[in-house]
Amino acid sequence: MTDSSRVEPFDAVDVIRTKRDGGRVPEDALRWMIDAYTREYVADSQMAAFAMAVLLNGMDRDEIRVMTDAMIASGERMSFAGLGKPTVDKHSTGGVGDKITLPLAPLVAAFGVAVPQLSGRGLGHTGGTLDKLESIPGWRAALSNDEMTAQLRDVGAVICAAGSGLAPADKRLYALRDVTGTVEAIPLIASSIMSKKIAEGTDALVLDVKFGSGAFMRDYDRARQLAETMVALGTDSGVKTTALLTDMNTPLGLAIGNANEVRESVEVLAGGGPADVVELTVALAREMLALAGQPDADVEAALRDGRAMDAWRRMITAQDGDPDATLPTPNETHTVVAPRDGFVTRIDALSFGVAAWRLGAGRARAEDPVLHSAGIDLHAKPGDRVAAGQPLFTIGGPDDTRFARALESLEGEWEIGDDAPVRESIVRERIKAGGY
Amino acid sequence: MTDSSRVEPFDAVDVIRTKRDGGRVPEDALRWMIDAYTREYVADSQMAAFAMAVLLNGMDRDEIRVMTDAMIASGERMSFAGLGKPTVDKHSTGGVGDKITLPLAPLVAAFGVAVPQLSGRGLGHTGGTLDKLESIPGWRAALSNDEMTAQLRDVGAVICAAGSGLAPADKRLYALRDVTGTVEAIPLIASSIMSKKIAEGTDALVLDVKFGSGAFMRDYDRARQLAETMVALGTDSGVKTTALLTDMNTPLGLAIGNANEVRESVEVLAGGGPADVVELTVALAREMLALAGQPDADVEAALRDGRAMDAWRRMITAQDGDPDATLPTPNETHTVVAPRDGFVTRIDALSFGVAAWRLGAGRARAEDPVLHSAGIDLHAKPGDRVAAGQPLFTIGGPDDTRFARALESLEGEWEIGDDAPVRESIVRERIKAGGY
Repeated sequence: MTDSSRVEPFDAVDVIRTKRDGGRVPEDALRWMIDAYTREYVADSQMAAFAMAVLLNGMDRDEIRVMTDAMIASGERMSFAGLGKPTVDKHSTGGVGDKITLPLAPLVAAFGVAVPQLSGRGLGHTGGTLDKLESIPGWRAALSNDEMTAQLRDVGAVICAAGSGLAPADKRLYALRDVTGTVEAIPLIASSIMSKKIAEGTDALVLDVKFGSGAFMRDYDRARQLAETMVALGTDSGVKTTALLTDMNTPLGLAIGNANEVRESVEVLAGGGPADVVELTVALAREMLALAGQPDADVEAALRDGRAMDAWRRMITAQDGDPDATLPTPNETHTVVAPRDGFVTRIDALSFGVAAWRLGAGRARAEDPVLHSAGIDLHAKPGDRVAAGQPLFTIGGPDDTRFARALESLEGEWEIGDDAPVRESIVRERIKAGGY
Repeated sequence: MTDSSRVEPFDAVDVIRTKRDGGRVPEDALRWMIDAYTREYVADSQMAAFAMAVLLNGMDRDEIRVMTDAMIASGERMSFAGLGKPTVDKHSTGGVGDKITLPLAPLVAAFGVAVPQLSGRGLGHTGGTLDKLESIPGWRAALSNDEMTAQLRDVGAVICAAGSGLAPADKRLYALRDVTGTVEAIPLIASSIMSKKIAEGTDALVLDVKFGSGAFMRDYDRARQLAETMVALGTDSGVKTTALLTDMNTPLGLAIGNANEVRESVEVLAGGGPADVVELTVALAREMLALAGQPDADVEAALRDGRAMDAWRRMITAQDGDPDATLPTPNETHTVVAPRDGFVTRIDALSFGVAAWRLGAGRARAEDPVLHSAGIDLHAKPGDRVAAGQPLFTIGGPDDTRFARALESLEGEWEIGDDAPVRESIVRERIKAGGY
């Protein structure tokens, strides 16, 4: 609505109607729609209606490619070609308790690879990497491009907010989708993720595409479709891309929140931590290092011998954070105990994610703050044997006003049975280019 | 976003997701959604996504009733219970050349019935009743509630602008739907129309639901579904409601515009006028009078003997209009003639509506003015025999700058053939309560 003298070649309502009625949006009209949205000529309400129509009626492969390209073209493109070392990035489609970026980036950087990890804030029931790191006193998410390049050269790992210059169309659309119930559309997820990653100028990319209760894609086949779509998009754009399909039916690790997830990440970097977090961190690090030309790197050794921890401390310090600072803890807690003897058979990822969100660890609207001390600590995971009265999990926050609603969403969402469930690997499948 | 201290019992994203995934939105959540939208807590973008989900996934009868009731509850309710005579209103879903309200309101009022006709302005290719009447020098659309009540008592007929206090949620939603490609959803159309009519406090209501090229509902079955939905809604709310399904493939009458449509209405009130306008006016008047307890009223006599004309003159005068004033006429005209002998077989309502709109008779944005002299006069209608060179229609306006674009939209949109088309009645079906 800024330049009224400009003659617009398309009309947003026509574009919306085309998708609404199940049609294919022509390339020039789709490019215009994204460009006009970036210029704020197309309103949020119009893009929201379009996004809902895309969610319900889909987009074909060509529309997704055009949409991605239009979002890249809406902003600047970065390049790390001058660094003198390979750059590899990781992206997760988001899950409950997914703090993997925190140990992973310094772990991979410990092998001399640059990890430019541009991250986001929380979206619905899944936490945001920046929200978690902001639990660390002093740590700042916003870096200039120069600061980022310097840190990649000196430390190797950077986790920071994407600058506003990178795919600004996506930035606006991402915030909009969050509040309009249009997060779950494969074409929108794929183009959103890949536009930022391609514009970021990374040489290679490993995607952690989650399926199950706590994932955007509950359905395995839809998660696989998303993975294949993104691997094809990346490969077509000259970015070496592979994807792992990983299980998100159960929260990752024992901590769900912000500060507590940082604590758990530090445990992994110290060579400990929950088995599932270690498994996934190691698997993703191996993929990233393979794409960076180090297929035989001994990843576990770097966790054991302190190299990864050292990279973590340098990474946090470089962004003004104090790696030795005390992290926020809840003032109020409430612990739920096992009502009987048996095996934990289910801890539902979505419900525990929603509960953490209700406790204040996530946000309902983009402008809401998060409560860094709020969250859930699990004391047992599926497969663990528990005795009656033994603590199962603890919810916490600055006060207990949100506890009732959080507990409500947990009712019936964990189970104790007589038999131990079968333990499966978290990493279920690997998707390479050419599978699309 | 106004009262941040208020605890909201629902979340807009949950409501959107429920409808997106094909579910039924619970009554309390739906009432909250409309109320929160009125309070501007729910954003336009959220309501746009919800509207698109409603358009693509539908609403059941109960959801539509709740939605309507919530929109009524968003504002004031009027009452004409103290008038001492029955009140009957008419609503048309909008068509090209649809000036029926102008002769109809005074015609029905001539039988001692009060007709509180709250009308709107034109947007897009369908004209607005208030725009047409504003062609009459001095006439004013804005009346206070007291003025309206006095005029209903003294004259019987009022055509005026709806006050901003009536269903404000609908007002906002109506403007939003217009720019987000969500106009065509039956649940949204039905609740929009009926919330205003029920809030207006009329005892009875006759709906003119149009189908065909120039109507929102091109499809007969969809128009019928809309009519049945609205009749059920009205009946459930204690408003006696019937609907006529009427043909809008061809413009109504010979005049499309503003001043020329007033002229044609006066012809009807003088006992003349085009056959289709007379047919529809009489049919709707009979329905309205039947609902007001006069099923045997001789409607045609009131047109012949001047009673309807007398009521018209008093209605216009009461709103400061001069019924004898000269109406605006075009300074420039352009006439299109028949290229061959034959029968007119098609005059496309939508295209002629769009052409009149392009001439300036309608507006593209709510804040635009309309040109009262602009429009189209037809000289022949489908079924009429014409000779080569005989005038078919004349476009006109204050100048000829808009003629080229208007003529463009008419190309191929009228036809002359060898055989006379079958003439069908405009009124195709009558929908009574209980048919839902």
